[in-house]
Amino acid sequence: MTSHMDHSAVTVLGLGPMGRALAGAFLDAGLRVTVWNRTPGKDRDLVARGAAGARSPEEAVAASGLTVVCVVNYDAVDAVVRRDAVAEALKGRTVVNLTADTPDRARDAAAWAADHGIGYLDGAIMTPTPTIGTPAGVFLHSGPGELYAQHRPVLGALGGTHTHLGADIGRAAAYDIALLDIFWTAMAGYAHALAVARAEGIGARELAPFANGIAAILPPLFESGAQDADNGTYSGAGNPLTSAVSSMAHIVHTSESHGIDASVMRAAECLARRAIGRGHGAGGFLRIAEIMSPR
Amino acid sequence: MTSHMDHSAVTVLGLGPMGRALAGAFLDAGLRVTVWNRTPGKDRDLVARGAAGARSPEEAVAASGLTVVCVVNYDAVDAVVRRDAVAEALKGRTVVNLTADTPDRARDAAAWAADHGIGYLDGAIMTPTPTIGTPAGVFLHSGPGELYAQHRPVLGALGGTHTHLGADIGRAAAYDIALLDIFWTAMAGYAHALAVARAEGIGARELAPFANGIAAILPPLFESGAQDADNGTYSGAGNPLTSAVSSMAHIVHTSESHGIDASVMRAAECLARRAIGRGHGAGGFLRIAEIMSPR
Repeated sequence: MTSHMDHSAVTVLGLGPMGRALAGAFLDAGLRVTVWNRTPGKDRDLVARGAAGARSPEEAVAASGLTVVCVVNYDAVDAVVRRDAVAEALKGRTVVNLTADTPDRARDAAAWAADHGIGYLDGAIMTPTPTIGTPAGVFLHSGPGELYAQHRPVLGALGGTHTHLGADIGRAAAYDIALLDIFWTAMAGYAHALAVARAEGIGARELAPFANGIAAILPPLFESGAQDADNGTYSGAGNPLTSAVSSMAHIVHTSESHGIDASVMRAAECLARRAIGRGHGAGGFLRIAEIMSPR
Repeated sequence: MTSHMDHSAVTVLGLGPMGRALAGAFLDAGLRVTVWNRTPGKDRDLVARGAAGARSPEEAVAASGLTVVCVVNYDAVDAVVRRDAVAEALKGRTVVNLTADTPDRARDAAAWAADHGIGYLDGAIMTPTPTIGTPAGVFLHSGPGELYAQHRPVLGALGGTHTHLGADIGRAAAYDIALLDIFWTAMAGYAHALAVARAEGIGARELAPFANGIAAILPPLFESGAQDADNGTYSGAGNPLTSAVSSMAHIVHTSESHGIDASVMRAAECLARRAIGRGHGAGGFLRIAEIMSPR
């Protein structure tokens, strides 16, 4: 069946900010795009730009050999896709699920797809919506290599870099979880920094250039820390855990002296103090990765 | 007295990793450097490179018009500097305190210095030890503008960029606290990501290039977020809080399903859910800066 399909056609299910960006990039690339969203009206701009607005998900998926799904989580995916009419329409076609959720959910979705004769690839989008269709986009994929190779040209219309992480269908979601972990934690730190800065009379725009300087020092520390983590040795030569907790305690103290919640930093400080308590005070901060893991 | 002093001389008190890097950069710049550390023996390499090793802090500070202090915190500063013999030797000279602590401690130190006729500047080093003496170093200073201008040439020997944040002596420490807040929170997120990745069979070195990609997307979000924060409007157009908590819940779930402590992310998720509970679900994540602050 696949060989007869129109490979210049793609369906997008889910038209939140990211789904609309994906469909827009496909349209810009000249593909025949069919769109559907549970809440009506979200397809207006896309239809004006040439997309076909389907009246149901089964109609949407029947229009293309490849369906890209991007909704809030897998509960939302299941509510749309795991219905008899949709499963029937998808038979012999492929779903690329760019919805973020856990590795377990990705594995479960792949098992369901296999049971229904549906090709299934899982993916993750690691960059914000404005990067879609530009060289700055970062996409991770996992699932059968042949299936990925077959649909790679259409996915390429999204721009950016695409990395196939292997056949293990949960791999993209696992990377996604780990990378979003860094992202949301860092953003929580930035929000807290803004609150503390404001209490000290420092405007957010005054702080931002220096905050960017902090972002700039992270990559070399991530690189050297990755080697430490893989080797299980955490060097504290330049910056031992004892210095880290001193710094963290200053942050908690200043925050709380202004009445600002410091729960995130307190949780991090607790891990660092536990690492010191286990004799790692002269070692590096990333030792806390061991402390938080079960033995 | 100041006008008679040798402005090619500088004293460094505290020879931890950062203190040694500072003294080394002063030596490389051809300055006459005197060093002292509470624990003996830390000056060996520096003395071999031409530094004078003082036998006491009072002897050390008497050797130069400018003394740079960099120890673990202000308790350590006070234990060294707030002694009669040292205060006497410092009279009419200047201390640049690059030790990290809270804004309150900086203000207290400045008051003590003023009482003893000692010039006092407070500063913060925002980059790791290997950046000292290179263009990558970032130094923040606060305190009297004239005093800063007078010692700026010697401080310039440390390389990098130096920013004078104004006469309010607590300003450098306030920036330091806010910026280290971002730094340590992000590093805690990275440590957690490494733990989760490992549990999912992903090596740290496999994750690191993508982690660097996350660091790369932060600056534009910091910039736009700073505008939001200063305006008190938090746009969720591309990424509403409801999506953020969905992502955070996936991280907590995956982490805990592997028995990995998720206390840092749980604390951040709690703030995000409280923001949603106050009606900000369609808004941007940085709204949590308001939620954590007292009304």
